[in-house]
Amino acid sequence: MSVTEQARRAREAASMLATATRSVKDGALHAMADALVARTPEILTANEADLAAGREAGLSTAVLDRLALSAERMAGIADALRQMAALPDPVGEVVRGSTLPNGLELRQIRVPFGVVGIIYEARPNVTVDAAGICLKSGNAALLRGSSSAVRSNAALVAVLRDAVAGAGLPADAVQLLDATSRDSVKELMRARGLVDVLIPRGGASLIRTVVEESTVPVIETGVGNCHVYVDAAADLQKAVAVTLNAKTQRLSTCNTAESLLVHADIADVFLPAVLAAFAEAGVTVHGDERVRAYSDAVVPVSEEDFGTEYLSADISAAVVDSLADAVGHIRRYGSGHTEAIVTDSAVAAREFVARVDSAAVMVNASTRFTDGGEFGFGAEIGISTQKLHARGPMGLPELTSTKYVVTGDGHIRT
Amino acid sequence: MSVTEQARRAREAASMLATATRSVKDGALHAMADALVARTPEILTANEADLAAGREAGLSTAVLDRLALSAERMAGIADALRQMAALPDPVGEVVRGSTLPNGLELRQIRVPFGVVGIIYEARPNVTVDAAGICLKSGNAALLRGSSSAVRSNAALVAVLRDAVAGAGLPADAVQLLDATSRDSVKELMRARGLVDVLIPRGGASLIRTVVEESTVPVIETGVGNCHVYVDAAADLQKAVAVTLNAKTQRLSTCNTAESLLVHADIADVFLPAVLAAFAEAGVTVHGDERVRAYSDAVVPVSEEDFGTEYLSADISAAVVDSLADAVGHIRRYGSGHTEAIVTDSAVAAREFVARVDSAAVMVNASTRFTDGGEFGFGAEIGISTQKLHARGPMGLPELTSTKYVVTGDGHIRT
Repeated sequence: MSVTEQARRAREAASMLATATRSVKDGALHAMADALVARTPEILTANEADLAAGREAGLSTAVLDRLALSAERMAGIADALRQMAALPDPVGEVVRGSTLPNGLELRQIRVPFGVVGIIYEARPNVTVDAAGICLKSGNAALLRGSSSAVRSNAALVAVLRDAVAGAGLPADAVQLLDATSRDSVKELMRARGLVDVLIPRGGASLIRTVVEESTVPVIETGVGNCHVYVDAAADLQKAVAVTLNAKTQRLSTCNTAESLLVHADIADVFLPAVLAAFAEAGVTVHGDERVRAYSDAVVPVSEEDFGTEYLSADISAAVVDSLADAVGHIRRYGSGHTEAIVTDSAVAAREFVARVDSAAVMVNASTRFTDGGEFGFGAEIGISTQKLHARGPMGLPELTSTKYVVTGDGHIRT
Repeated sequence: MSVTEQARRAREAASMLATATRSVKDGALHAMADALVARTPEILTANEADLAAGREAGLSTAVLDRLALSAERMAGIADALRQMAALPDPVGEVVRGSTLPNGLELRQIRVPFGVVGIIYEARPNVTVDAAGICLKSGNAALLRGSSSAVRSNAALVAVLRDAVAGAGLPADAVQLLDATSRDSVKELMRARGLVDVLIPRGGASLIRTVVEESTVPVIETGVGNCHVYVDAAADLQKAVAVTLNAKTQRLSTCNTAESLLVHADIADVFLPAVLAAFAEAGVTVHGDERVRAYSDAVVPVSEEDFGTEYLSADISAAVVDSLADAVGHIRRYGSGHTEAIVTDSAVAAREFVARVDSAAVMVNASTRFTDGGEFGFGAEIGISTQKLHARGPMGLPELTSTKYVVTGDGHIRT
């Protein structure tokens, strides 16, 4: 079936989902969870085949690990759906309301987008997560996964569709697009009018392509060249702890710190401490001359380094002469994801928060906290680094639009 | 100067505007208003030259009328700026906030977009309005007006820039782009990273081009193929009044009704009444066979008519057998702007509101009420017909994004 035909079916399903009550949607989420557990064996068989093909194709262990499912992982994935069912339904929320001077009653109400397209990496759990988040928010999902997960995703979506249909909602609320060719992405990007929003996840180059070529509105996610700025007035212990955590707590996430900026006034005490901690943690520091003065282990940094999201045990580092210089550096090289300041100065904190133009600004906290789960959203479809519509972690409300409902008694405009 | 260079300057100005206090911004708005009044003569001279060129080029009286300025119009335009100054500042509003279980303080705060590009029709008042709304919301404005208004816009922007600079804000907060070539639009559409959002207004074909070709995120505005559905349970008088008002109160606005759907059960009483009213108002009704049965004055309707935004004294009309058929018709031909139902049935109203997927749904009220002024927003940059970011009339908050500020005490993630 062509993507356009799938999008048409999704549109049809979406018109039914839009008016489905919360109890019906939550019932479907529970049915999906139960079915995933009950039919785990067939899913694992499909996953085994993907893993075998992946090994043969020479995929890295990191990629294979993310691709791998197990009975335990399946239970976790199913639990995530049950937790989604427990979250409030964003649809129908009255965002604002008033009675106008002429007596018209104005209400702005949350409604689903309609059809949401998601293009994502080789992580089968995203297939289930995205299907669940879309369904809960009343949207039909068009899922375009990775070719390396094609068998796993097919098995998962078959189970999900059966469960959705069994719960009285249209099976076409969840559809998998052909992942074996680039054409499905191209067709999806041109389906304006049928698809309401596209969310690309995963690789930077894929995201750039979608942003550049899509006529369907896009929410850009994911690229995080996050900075930690250690201010002159930083508490030394907190500064080391936050910097180390931001870099090393998990290396390959978008909220991992990739660059360290140190105020010159604190460099003498902070840099030796943090460089020792990084050395112990096996992190390679790419530093400017002023950083390199503190350790021979620091390798030279390039312009390109400062703009790089390493996603590895590497960090770029520079000494700056002022908070303004730190902000200037971030403005130049940052990706607008998350920036942190460590400082005990209220003045510096206020200034940094006001000047840094990123989705999230942390004061005395690790960049790793920019996360829908940590923020208490209960579910997350990605982290937006654009300013339109949603910025930062996107939960259920971010997958909705609004509609104005205006009620009168034969009101006419004069 | 190239558009890219102008965008770079706008970006610089935006970083200053983002932290400007409300009192400074409001001071600038008042200075702009005062300067427009004080320097009205030079603006009118420039406008005269545009009008003369327009007459020579054979522009229609309607276009010339919208292009024309006068001392009175200038006073009105200046007053609009003063009213904007009186509106609350959206920047800094805490949209949500909580303390997380680990003690982190989470706040989501409204921040300006940064740089807003506006492409618009030959209406010099939009130049001032857009500049004012952008400044109030902390955004730098890149204004790309019509070539027919090139002299008027240059005069207006010169006055505005002087006033902005005099009020202590960067003059580059307001910049006019070259309107004499299409290249400036093309360059603007490719300025991703420098321009945060593009708002095209005016002609449907221009809007389509921008939506299709822009890599900068776009907010689609304006096209309104609005419907009035007269339900079986409609009050006859209200139905005639609302229908007539929706079509004739102003012919050329996007919230004007362009199509009438009548339930078969009320056609015998409603259609003769409304057709007589339309005849008297000089409106040509393009009707299906069932409508034509009521009057010889009704001309045949085509598929194309149903999809047309006339913006003239024309309306398409059809008889439908059910509310579901009305919704189906709207789903097929509507543009998602505004749809109205006239009914005394709570059941029908609820069903229509739930099923119609438009920016605004009116119950017993004219479609003409979809308007930032009518909604009490105080200022309006356009009416969004897309679902991403903003839907319906866009006021000041719709010209902002948000930022998460997370404050801890050395918090790390474990």
